[in-house]
Amino acid sequence: MFYIIGLGLGDCKDITVKGLEIVRKCSRVYLEAYTSILTCGTEALEKFYGRELIVADRDLVEQGADDILAGSGTEDVALLVVGDPFGATTHTDFILRAQEKGIPYQVVHNASIMNAVGCCGLQLYSFGETISIPYWDDTWQPDSFYDKIVANYDRKLHTLCLLDIKVKEPTLESLTKKKREYMPPRFMSVKEAAVQLLQIIDRKQAGIKKDVFCIGLARVGAENQQIVGCSLEKMSEVDLGGPLHSLIIAGPDLHPLEVEYIEQFTI
Amino acid sequence: MFYIIGLGLGDCKDITVKGLEIVRKCSRVYLEAYTSILTCGTEALEKFYGRELIVADRDLVEQGADDILAGSGTEDVALLVVGDPFGATTHTDFILRAQEKGIPYQVVHNASIMNAVGCCGLQLYSFGETISIPYWDDTWQPDSFYDKIVANYDRKLHTLCLLDIKVKEPTLESLTKKKREYMPPRFMSVKEAAVQLLQIIDRKQAGIKKDVFCIGLARVGAENQQIVGCSLEKMSEVDLGGPLHSLIIAGPDLHPLEVEYIEQFTI
Repeated sequence: MFYIIGLGLGDCKDITVKGLEIVRKCSRVYLEAYTSILTCGTEALEKFYGRELIVADRDLVEQGADDILAGSGTEDVALLVVGDPFGATTHTDFILRAQEKGIPYQVVHNASIMNAVGCCGLQLYSFGETISIPYWDDTWQPDSFYDKIVANYDRKLHTLCLLDIKVKEPTLESLTKKKREYMPPRFMSVKEAAVQLLQIIDRKQAGIKKDVFCIGLARVGAENQQIVGCSLEKMSEVDLGGPLHSLIIAGPDLHPLEVEYIEQFTI
Repeated sequence: MFYIIGLGLGDCKDITVKGLEIVRKCSRVYLEAYTSILTCGTEALEKFYGRELIVADRDLVEQGADDILAGSGTEDVALLVVGDPFGATTHTDFILRAQEKGIPYQVVHNASIMNAVGCCGLQLYSFGETISIPYWDDTWQPDSFYDKIVANYDRKLHTLCLLDIKVKEPTLESLTKKKREYMPPRFMSVKEAAVQLLQIIDRKQAGIKKDVFCIGLARVGAENQQIVGCSLEKMSEVDLGGPLHSLIIAGPDLHPLEVEYIEQFTI
């Protein structure tokens, strides 16, 4: 059996009882460590599960799916992913491959940022389409996500912005070499996201304003979780510490219960 | 400390390890049993947790919040909720009350239908606003949610429709009596939801068509989970068995990976 198990968002103990039982009985357990991370680290997970994990980095996940699935028709193999298994298309793709090979599979759900974001007090029913904000560089500065934020805002909906993660990105120089070299991992902060959004507003001069109310979230579900509410302009100066961060652009009209709840986070 | 703990969607073992440890150390543990249900039943939960649970029905949740919170400033009290703690405004309200009373609180996240719905293969990033479909009666047939489905569809987004649950609804006759009598619990099926939607389409003659592609989901996360994809018209004849059900109205253009994944469920 091939298992794909969500680890939730916080630390080792956010795995479900069902998930833990499976992890302990599998012959091989992979930890997907490229679409997201758990801040507690791999060693802490290994210690808590009482077993060895194989870290599946970008290369292994994207090119080594057959290796990961190997043998799971006759023995138990698990792939652990941060959040919920259906948070990234990469994981859906794994299930498709298992099906193609006639391998039975089971999914163990868990919390993901898509629902845990409710912890800021904004109602999940009032969110529109979720968007992703990618890192810009000198030559590539896409901003198509901005129109989606504006479309949500015009419909009085909040927008959850997932922020870019760059893990195991090969350096430009090493692309032509035999031996790949990698850049240090980068995780976009709410501050960086706010700065990019302000630049887009400057360019477009339409859509949302710079004083739009935002909520910055860091390390949701972890003990040192942080939530801050302020204008987008102010958010560009906020430091919420280590990864992972998410940003919400609130809709124009908050429900009284939302206002009451968010007060505790507003600066 | 006041704990509010998500139980996930499937059975007893979908609680997280963190959640289970807290449940076992609390002096009182309430099970919220009115905004949603776990099909495994209260007795199975009590047996698995190795402790007694206090079932918090609608009356207790809506009027007895002070009783539930009582003493949690000095001892540990937990409220267990199906899915994630921030799935219903009722639960957010509990946290606000705890704050007002100066009671420290901790949230333990888990999967909810808002993210677990990804199991049908539609990408979570391509969902618009989530809506709720209420039961109609002879005198009350609201349809404002229909415009939201259409607005999502026009933006090429999927709509997750949460279906009505009626638990501990007093009978009309007993409302004026001293002793309340309750109607048997009702859980809207995808079939019932589809029938109501088809009636709205007949009335409005605009928006989405009767052959729009839909996905019906039943008991997501449980072992006997069922998923079916077909036209709305056909969905009005589909029987997916026991609760809870959810319905998705798919957007007009599916991603190739979505199409490939959904094939296995399509009838």
